[in-house]
Amino acid sequence: MHTDLCLQPATAIARLIRQRAVSASEVLEAHLARIEKLNPLVNAIVTLDVTGARDRARAIDEALARGEDPGPLAGLPVAHKDLAETKGMRTTYGSPIFADFVPDFDALIVARLKAAGAVTIGKTNTPEFGAGSQTFNPVFGATRNPYDLSKTCGGSSGGAAVALACGMIPIADGSDLGGSLRNPAGYCNVVGFRTSPGRVPVWPDPTPYLPFAIDGPMARTVADIALVLQAIAGPDPRAPLSISEPASIFAQPLERDLRGVRVAWSPDLGGLPVDPRVSDVIAAQRAVFEQLGCIVEEATPDLSDADEIFQVMRAFRYELTLGELLDRERARMKDTVVWNIEAGRALSGPQVGRAMRLHAALLARLHEFMQRYEFIIAPVSQVPPFPVEQPYITEINGVPMRNYIEWMRSCYYISVCNTPAIAVPAGFTRDGLPVGLQIIGRPRADFSVLQLAYAYEQATQHWRRHPQLATV
Amino acid sequence: MHTDLCLQPATAIARLIRQRAVSASEVLEAHLARIEKLNPLVNAIVTLDVTGARDRARAIDEALARGEDPGPLAGLPVAHKDLAETKGMRTTYGSPIFADFVPDFDALIVARLKAAGAVTIGKTNTPEFGAGSQTFNPVFGATRNPYDLSKTCGGSSGGAAVALACGMIPIADGSDLGGSLRNPAGYCNVVGFRTSPGRVPVWPDPTPYLPFAIDGPMARTVADIALVLQAIAGPDPRAPLSISEPASIFAQPLERDLRGVRVAWSPDLGGLPVDPRVSDVIAAQRAVFEQLGCIVEEATPDLSDADEIFQVMRAFRYELTLGELLDRERARMKDTVVWNIEAGRALSGPQVGRAMRLHAALLARLHEFMQRYEFIIAPVSQVPPFPVEQPYITEINGVPMRNYIEWMRSCYYISVCNTPAIAVPAGFTRDGLPVGLQIIGRPRADFSVLQLAYAYEQATQHWRRHPQLATV
Repeated sequence: MHTDLCLQPATAIARLIRQRAVSASEVLEAHLARIEKLNPLVNAIVTLDVTGARDRARAIDEALARGEDPGPLAGLPVAHKDLAETKGMRTTYGSPIFADFVPDFDALIVARLKAAGAVTIGKTNTPEFGAGSQTFNPVFGATRNPYDLSKTCGGSSGGAAVALACGMIPIADGSDLGGSLRNPAGYCNVVGFRTSPGRVPVWPDPTPYLPFAIDGPMARTVADIALVLQAIAGPDPRAPLSISEPASIFAQPLERDLRGVRVAWSPDLGGLPVDPRVSDVIAAQRAVFEQLGCIVEEATPDLSDADEIFQVMRAFRYELTLGELLDRERARMKDTVVWNIEAGRALSGPQVGRAMRLHAALLARLHEFMQRYEFIIAPVSQVPPFPVEQPYITEINGVPMRNYIEWMRSCYYISVCNTPAIAVPAGFTRDGLPVGLQIIGRPRADFSVLQLAYAYEQATQHWRRHPQLATV
Repeated sequence: MHTDLCLQPATAIARLIRQRAVSASEVLEAHLARIEKLNPLVNAIVTLDVTGARDRARAIDEALARGEDPGPLAGLPVAHKDLAETKGMRTTYGSPIFADFVPDFDALIVARLKAAGAVTIGKTNTPEFGAGSQTFNPVFGATRNPYDLSKTCGGSSGGAAVALACGMIPIADGSDLGGSLRNPAGYCNVVGFRTSPGRVPVWPDPTPYLPFAIDGPMARTVADIALVLQAIAGPDPRAPLSISEPASIFAQPLERDLRGVRVAWSPDLGGLPVDPRVSDVIAAQRAVFEQLGCIVEEATPDLSDADEIFQVMRAFRYELTLGELLDRERARMKDTVVWNIEAGRALSGPQVGRAMRLHAALLARLHEFMQRYEFIIAPVSQVPPFPVEQPYITEINGVPMRNYIEWMRSCYYISVCNTPAIAVPAGFTRDGLPVGLQIIGRPRADFSVLQLAYAYEQATQHWRRHPQLATV
């Protein structure tokens, strides 16, 4: 029974627990058994607190037995990205410098998941300081793609995506600066939602007014994402970008009549090189949206300058957050992180100012574009999962990439758009590698994005093709 | 009749128009008569469109005659700060470079005032590019304080404050980076409200994510401020800092039982030099808050680094917005503006990053402080109005000021706090010069700030002491 249970949607598992058809402790044991069996193959969960998790699950069961409501995520096992601070539990940021760091506080997203009744079991792997969409680091090694163990799972929320795909956890948190919720979701056939800045307040946050690095949910289905948002969305007074709407808006029905909804179909976001193995899968999805009644037109907003905006603001932020550490610990930081901090160190104030001006202009153009279109659809990643030994993509369709993140443009162009963007399973390459599709909505229209994603998921059911190693 | 009418609260004038006890056209003529008589003395209104204003007032009267609702500000004359773009009406920014500039669009705050039925009559004076809290520029000259024509009215929303104090307009808009809504309100015995960033969305805005330069309302009474906010608050999709709450929250009753409310009394914001003529007036106000039932304790949050944060971000923003213009038009820009742009040009990216880190830390400290106190009360300005010939204050109580804005610390320390801060009339020096008091609330608690300000105003009625030249 438990093998199947672990691949059910989180909403279904939560319902069973709430109805006391299964206990939180039983749910936990089923997931622990899977972790024991599968994690050695994929290395997704890098810190595991079995004793603590059992205590927490028992507490949920006791609360339910007393007739209390432990929250919308009652009894759902969760593991937190190892960039998110967890009180009393090692948080390494994927860096040997922090290999033994145990915070005395929970990051807000962790605190909210716990407060909603989720049962923390441990931490999920991430690249060093989250840098790069490939999950490896000198503390824990690489995380492997469960659909092909020779391939990367993407990143930086790579451990979370793999743990979800394998049924080791039903829900997860992640974060996204240049695609870190979306790329691993796309590579592992799960859902990752880069929510609007402020939808899931970030705390602590060294750049509380910069809208680029956000926290968000991951899960196997769109309805599960909505469930997690009921716990982690809603304003916090410490996060000035907070959107005021309460988390309860994500409890609304996901069904919506999508006839007549205008969708901009953007298979290459205006000329980005896209591997034909990805393009072929994406192209076949257009008909699904047409069958839903959407008016689908090939169109892309003018994203000129997105590259400069992102690269400048990323480097600026790296210097801001890690510059002091570089001075002390350079030898223990990977070359791409050093490069990114040094790029920030070389920036002048006016270069940062120019990026902000270009950003304001881009947002104004996008606002006009999205008067005509409610959604934009694009591939998540320009290439399918690649060998796990390769740190990053250096060339796509013969076009060379100038640095370790340029291959992530299809994600990070959207990171500067102030829009919600969800990555949903879109099918598989001929080699059986997952491909993700990105649904981008108007600023703050996170719920609308979920509605379209839900309809697409209902029509396609790609999420049900679990990794073979997880179904045996 | 009309002389008295023009010094009534805007809420009272709006009621008379709505009840058709007086027409919008009559209200306009009364105000135009005052402008004709008083403006030559003070130079507050620098562009006047009598014909257009008469057309607009007539249209309001016709709409009312047809039984339509032209909006909450129906028939109230308004003049816009000459930094706010007005479609078809000259907008100079106080700069000779733009002496003949006529925009083809309305800034959002202007558009919202018009849409709410306010009758645009013209523009109010401002320093060149709003730089400095003293209102003079080479296009229109200086604006004088109606309580003492030899003194400055403050700035940068100086023309607006004077026009309100003189009864030339019942409501106005302004903007505030380092105190530009608060200082002139304090100097002219009117009310200026630096709302929370995003409460009044700013558009166009070259720095849509920076929370320092904000737009806001000015009026003679707190209830009038609430009335204007019913028109200008509420989210706009082009302004990403927008607070989601609708403008209608400002239509709630302003009365509140303030017993037991904790107030931090901060007469010098932690050691700033304050001219004794100001200190004396402020000190006498403490008893008023105690009489309202507040628990008043002397306390100041730790605002260390506020100076560096503000000076860096201000210079950064000057370069960002005016750097290109400096290259072309240096000879036609005042020395303080050139200095501020060049200070921005000299910044490194990491210096900007350091200011942002310090900002995040300051906001975290303030959050803790405001768990204990709901409000902070401080003087608006550290000095009373000074000679109109003096461009800025160079020394306070013997403490030299290092640049043209340092004397505005009591305002700009608060500009980096992400809090709403209202300037309300607090009485007069022995020489009859107005003194303003600043009520600072928790982030986004704009309405609560209005409630305390309203109770204080009801208890003191300082606003009723109009300038002598306006009452004869």
